[in-house]
Amino acid sequence: MERQRIGLIGAGRIGQVHGEVLARQVAGAEIGMVADIHERAAAALAEKYGVRYTADYHDILHDDTIDAVAICSSTDTHAQIIIEAAAAGKHIFCEKPIDLQLARIDAALTAVAQANVKLMVGFNRRFDPNFRKAREMVAEGKIGEPHILRITSRDPGPPPLTYIKVSGGIFLDMTIHDFDMARFLMGSEVEEVYAVGAVLVDEAIGAAGDVDTAVITLKFANGAIGVIDNSRQAVYGYDQRVEIFGSAGMVQVGNEVGTTAVYSNAQAIESEKPVYFFLERYMVAYAEEMRQFVACLVENKEPPVSGIDGRIPVVLGMAAWKSCQENRPVKLSEIESV
Amino acid sequence: MERQRIGLIGAGRIGQVHGEVLARQVAGAEIGMVADIHERAAAALAEKYGVRYTADYHDILHDDTIDAVAICSSTDTHAQIIIEAAAAGKHIFCEKPIDLQLARIDAALTAVAQANVKLMVGFNRRFDPNFRKAREMVAEGKIGEPHILRITSRDPGPPPLTYIKVSGGIFLDMTIHDFDMARFLMGSEVEEVYAVGAVLVDEAIGAAGDVDTAVITLKFANGAIGVIDNSRQAVYGYDQRVEIFGSAGMVQVGNEVGTTAVYSNAQAIESEKPVYFFLERYMVAYAEEMRQFVACLVENKEPPVSGIDGRIPVVLGMAAWKSCQENRPVKLSEIESV
Amino acid sequence: MERQRIGLIGAGRIGQVHGEVLARQVAGAEIGMVADIHERAAAALAEKYGVRYTADYHDILHDDTIDAVAICSSTDTHAQIIIEAAAAGKHIFCEKPIDLQLARIDAALTAVAQANVKLMVGFNRRFDPNFRKAREMVAEGKIGEPHILRITSRDPGPPPLTYIKVSGGIFLDMTIHDFDMARFLMGSEVEEVYAVGAVLVDEAIGAAGDVDTAVITLKFANGAIGVIDNSRQAVYGYDQRVEIFGSAGMVQVGNEVGTTAVYSNAQAIESEKPVYFFLERYMVAYAEEMRQFVACLVENKEPPVSGIDGRIPVVLGMAAWKSCQENRPVKLSEIESV
Amino acid sequence: MERQRIGLIGAGRIGQVHGEVLARQVAGAEIGMVADIHERAAAALAEKYGVRYTADYHDILHDDTIDAVAICSSTDTHAQIIIEAAAAGKHIFCEKPIDLQLARIDAALTAVAQANVKLMVGFNRRFDPNFRKAREMVAEGKIGEPHILRITSRDPGPPPLTYIKVSGGIFLDMTIHDFDMARFLMGSEVEEVYAVGAVLVDEAIGAAGDVDTAVITLKFANGAIGVIDNSRQAVYGYDQRVEIFGSAGMVQVGNEVGTTAVYSNAQAIESEKPVYFFLERYMVAYAEEMRQFVACLVENKEPPVSGIDGRIPVVLGMAAWKSCQENRPVKLSEIESV
Repeated sequence: MERQRIGLIGAGRIGQVHGEVLARQVAGAEIGMVADIHERAAAALAEKYGVRYTADYHDILHDDTIDAVAICSSTDTHAQIIIEAAAAGKHIFCEKPIDLQLARIDAALTAVAQANVKLMVGFNRRFDPNFRKAREMVAEGKIGEPHILRITSRDPGPPPLTYIKVSGGIFLDMTIHDFDMARFLMGSEVEEVYAVGAVLVDEAIGAAGDVDTAVITLKFANGAIGVIDNSRQAVYGYDQRVEIFGSAGMVQVGNEVGTTAVYSNAQAIESEKPVYFFLERYMVAYAEEMRQFVACLVENKEPPVSGIDGRIPVVLGMAAWKSCQENRPVKLSEIESV
Repeated sequence: MERQRIGLIGAGRIGQVHGEVLARQVAGAEIGMVADIHERAAAALAEKYGVRYTADYHDILHDDTIDAVAICSSTDTHAQIIIEAAAAGKHIFCEKPIDLQLARIDAALTAVAQANVKLMVGFNRRFDPNFRKAREMVAEGKIGEPHILRITSRDPGPPPLTYIKVSGGIFLDMTIHDFDMARFLMGSEVEEVYAVGAVLVDEAIGAAGDVDTAVITLKFANGAIGVIDNSRQAVYGYDQRVEIFGSAGMVQVGNEVGTTAVYSNAQAIESEKPVYFFLERYMVAYAEEMRQFVACLVENKEPPVSGIDGRIPVVLGMAAWKSCQENRPVKLSEIESV
Repeated sequence: MERQRIGLIGAGRIGQVHGEVLARQVAGAEIGMVADIHERAAAALAEKYGVRYTADYHDILHDDTIDAVAICSSTDTHAQIIIEAAAAGKHIFCEKPIDLQLARIDAALTAVAQANVKLMVGFNRRFDPNFRKAREMVAEGKIGEPHILRITSRDPGPPPLTYIKVSGGIFLDMTIHDFDMARFLMGSEVEEVYAVGAVLVDEAIGAAGDVDTAVITLKFANGAIGVIDNSRQAVYGYDQRVEIFGSAGMVQVGNEVGTTAVYSNAQAIESEKPVYFFLERYMVAYAEEMRQFVACLVENKEPPVSGIDGRIPVVLGMAAWKSCQENRPVKLSEIESV
Repeated sequence: MERQRIGLIGAGRIGQVHGEVLARQVAGAEIGMVADIHERAAAALAEKYGVRYTADYHDILHDDTIDAVAICSSTDTHAQIIIEAAAAGKHIFCEKPIDLQLARIDAALTAVAQANVKLMVGFNRRFDPNFRKAREMVAEGKIGEPHILRITSRDPGPPPLTYIKVSGGIFLDMTIHDFDMARFLMGSEVEEVYAVGAVLVDEAIGAAGDVDTAVITLKFANGAIGVIDNSRQAVYGYDQRVEIFGSAGMVQVGNEVGTTAVYSNAQAIESEKPVYFFLERYMVAYAEEMRQFVACLVENKEPPVSGIDGRIPVVLGMAAWKSCQENRPVKLSEIESV
C-alpha cells in the first residue's frame, strides 16, 4: 500500500507535534512537504525528516504527489487555506478552531462539501485513551442515562498576553476543547449556555478584555446538565478531569501523573503532580488522532471529527461570551440567528 | 462541673441521633426530658436512657432543671418553639432549617436576641473532620486566594414523596446544606445564584413541583465562583465531595468508604462504595456538633453556627428557586427586598 | 434481658479501653467492679463509670453478681488469674498474650476446660472491619486458592525500654498480632517459620536483647507462603496493611487515614498520614470484640478467638525467636516437642 | 555527529523491541544489520527498517561500519557472542542473563575487559521512570537509612513449558530482574538469601523441576532486610511494585494502569487493571535503556549496567535455588567458592 503524503502547513509548536507524529508514528503516512511563512522554521522541520520545504503553502497545494494537508498555521489563515486546499482536491486536517467567525467557517465547510474532500478538525482530546474509555462507557450504557457532566480544565499557566489578545478569549481558545469534550462524552447537543467569568489570575488578562477563570453551565438536548470550570493557572499543573454521572452509575477520568511513586514521611503522603501540559498529557492522543485521519483517507470513510464538529464549539464559545457579558443564559439559537 | 441538661424535642430519626449523642458521647451533658407529640416515640427514646418524657414540649420549657433544648421536631414547628424556648430562658439547638419563611425566621432570631439565649443551628457537616480540615487549609492560606469552589452532594435515593411535598423542595431541603458548606469553606458570602433544575430521577418528583437534579452556580463577594451539583439518587451511594481551588493550590475532600479493602480480579480493581447515607457519614460530626454546642453553654461563648448562619442558606434556597423558575441569575438582595 | 456484669481486672491503658467500651458501647453489658493493684488507678476508672473498685482482684472473683472478668493486667499475671477465675466459675476475656510460657498457657487452658467456662483471647485486629472484609473475601473464595500472604505491621515509635525488657521481645509482643492475623486471614495453620531480625531503629533495643526490625517467612499447611514485615518505628505513623494473593485474585487492606482531604500544591499532591496508633486505628475493633464476647455469654456460644487461638501465636513467636537466633527455618513441631 | 550503527543479533520478540527503539527512538543510532539463525525472521525485521540482514551474526562482527552489537539471541549463545564481539572490537549490549553458568559469564567478562570494549546488560526495569524515581529518592536520602525492601513481581501468566525448561527456573529467569532491582534500589549488596518456592499455579511447572510461586528473603550488607514475592500468574495482570522503608520515610511504586477511568456503580468502585505485560509496562524503559547505551558509546563513558551488574543477579539466582532446595539461608560466598 502506498503511503499517504501529507503537506504540513505551519511549522510552529503544533506543526512540530504533527510533523513528528507523521514522520514516525503513523505507519501509512509520510510528510510530503513543509510550509511556513517563516522559511527558516519550515527548513528546520523539513531537514529533520529529510523532506522538501517552502515559504508558500501554495507549493503544497500545487504538488500532485501530495494527498492531504495538515493545517497548523495561525487561526486567521485556517478558513482561507481550507477553501484553497479543497479547491486543489486535497483532503484536510485542520487545527482547532476553524475560524473565529461563523461566516468564514461556513464558507470553508461549503468549499469542502463542494470539492468532496475530507475534513477533520483537530480536537485531539477525543483521542486520549482516558476520555475515550469514558465515552465508551457512556455509549455502552454503563452509567444509564447521563444526568450531570462535570469537566475541569485548568492550565498550568497563562499564555503570553500577545497570544491571548488574538485567541478569541478563554471561551473560544480554552473552553472550546471542553465544549467539544462535552458533546463527545454526552452524545447530545448543548442547547443553552450560562457562563460566569472572572479575572483572578492576572489583571492584565482582564485589561486585554479576557477572563482567566470561568464556570460554564450547559443544558443538553437530552435533559442533562453540564458544568465546566476553567482556570488559566493551576499551580499544581495541567488539570484535565471529567465526570459523567447517570442513572446507573458514574465514570470519572483523573489526571495522568509523572510517576506512580508515593512518598510517605513524617508530614504527609506525597504523590506526584499531573504531567506538565498538553504536549505531555496528549502526545498519545495526537498520534492516534493523525492515525485515524490517515485511516479515513486510506479506507475512504468519514473523519471522526467533522467540519460540523469543528463549527459547533465555536458557536458555543460565542454563546458563552454573550452569556458572560450579559449575565444571562443564552440559547445557541440566538447565536445562529444573528 | 455540673452537666448541662438538655430537653430533646422530637424523637424521630434525627432526635434519636442527638439523643444517643447526648446520652453517651458528650461528657458534660445529659438528656433532661424527651418530648414528642407521638407520646409512644417519646417514651421509647426516654426509656432507652432512663429519663422522663412528655407529649407536650411545654413541659420541657417549664422545667427549671433543664438548661437548653434540642429542637428536632418537624420544620414547621421550629420557629414557634424557638420563640417559646427563648422566652423560657432556654438555650437552643435547632435542626436546619429554622423555617421556610424569612418572616418567621426573623421573628425567631429577634426572640433569641431579646432573651439573650444562645442559638445554634444544626448544620452538622461543618463538624465533619474532612470538611473541617479543608476549611482549616483555606483559612490558613494554604491554597492562596480561593478561585473556584465545587461541591458535589448526591443522595443514595430520594425521600418519600410525602416528605418531598413539605420539604421546601430540593434547594431548601438538600442544597441548603451545600449553601452552608459553601459559606463555611470560602469564608465569603454568596451574592448571586443561578440554578438549573431537572427532573431526571423520578417524574413523580416533578409532578410534586420539585426537581431531583440540579446544578447551581454561585458568585461570591470575594470574586470567586462556586458550583454545586445535586442529585436525589446516586446508585453508588451517598456522594459528598468538595474541592476548593485557589491561587496557590487546591484542597479536595473525597468520600468515606466502607472499608479500605481493595479487590483485584481478572476484570477490574474494585474498592468499596461510600458509606451508606448521612447517619453513617456524619455520625462523628453529629457528636462533635453537640459537644461544641454544650461547650458554648459551659464556657458562655458564641455558638459556631449562629442564627444568621441558619438564615442565609434559606435566602440562598429561595434565590435558587427563583433563579430556576425564571431561568436567570438572581441576586440575594432581590430576595431580601421582597 | 439482664446485662452481663463484667469485672475489669487492670485499670491501665488497655483496661481503660475495655472499660469505656463496656460502659458505653456494649448494649448488654456493664462494668461490675474494677480491680487494680494500684488502688488509685482502680478508683479513678471506677469513679468515671460509677462502679465499685478494689485493689484485690479476688474481690471480683468472689462476687456472685459478676458474670465474667476482663483480664487487662500485666502479662505475667494472666495465667494465674485465668486459673482462679475459671475455678470461680467466671467467664474470661483475656488480653494477649495468655503467657510467655507454654506450660503456664496449657495450665490455664486446662483450668478453663475443667471449669467449663468461656475464654476469649483479645486479638482485637480480627474485629477491624477492614481485615474482617478481607477475611470474608478469602472465605467466600473470591481470590480462589490463597498463594501468597503479605502483612506489614509497623509502629509509629518504639515502646519504653522498660516495657521491651519484659515484653518477650518483638516476636511475642508485636509480631504475635500478625501471627494471629495470618491464621485468621488464611484459615490455615503455619507449619514453619523463618525469621530475620535486625537492630536498625535503636541500639538500646539491641542491647536489651531484642530486635526492632524483622521479616518473617511463613509456610502454611495449605501450601501457601506468607511474609510479615515489622518495624518498631515508621515515621509516617502506624502502618497496618495486609495483602492476600490467590489463584483468582487479590485482596488488599490499606491504612485508615486522618481525613480524606487531599492537598495539591506546586510541589506535590499530599494526602494525610495513617491515624496515629492502635487506639485510633482499632477503637471500632475493640468495641466489636467486646460485643462479640458478651454475645457469646448471652447466647452461650463459643468465643470467636479461643484459648487455642491464644496459644498458637505464642508458639509461633517462640519459633520465630529460635529461627532468628539460629538463622534457619524452624518447624512449629520443634517448639512443641521441647 | 555520526550515528552509532548497531548490529542486531536475534530477531525474536525482544530483538524486535530493541530494533523498533533503535530505528525510531534513539536519535544518535541506527540499525546496521540484523542477524538471526532463522533467516526469514532477520529478513522480515530488516525489511521493516530498510537495512541489511544475515543468518550468520559473524557477518555483523566482520563489518567495519558497525560500531556495536545488541545481543538478543537465546541465552545459551550470549557468552560466546560476547567473546567474539569483544574480539572483533564491537561494543556490546546484551540481554539478561549473560549466561546461566558462572564460568562462562566470567570468560565473557574477561574477554570484554581484555578487548576494552563497553558491555551493558539489559536490565530494562532500571530505566522505568517509576523505579528510577524511587531510586533517586533513596539516593537523595529522602527515606533516611533503608531498613526494609519489598518487591512484588508477578506475571499475568506463565510462559510455555518449553521455555520454562531452558529458562534456568524462576529464580534465574524471573526473580533475576528483582535481584537486580534490589541492588539498584538499595545501593547495597545482598549477602545472604533464603528462598521458599511452591508449585501452586500449574503442576506441570513442578514436573519440569521449577516452582511457580516464591518468596525470597534478602540480607543486605548495610543491615537492611529485603523480601521479594513472585508468582507466574496474577489473574489481574502484570504486578510490578516496590516499597523501600527507611528511618525517615518510605517510597512506594505502584502499577501503571490502562487508563485513569474509574467507574462507580451499585456494587463497587472499579478502576482499571495494570497494563498487560512487560512490553506495555516497560516500553518507555526499553527506549531509555538503549538511549543510555548509545550515549555511553558517543560520550565514551561507563554503561549504567555493567558486566558485574549482569553477573551478580545470576549468583543470587543460584543461591536462591540452593536455598530453596536445601531449605536454609545461603550466603553468596557459598556460590562463589564452588
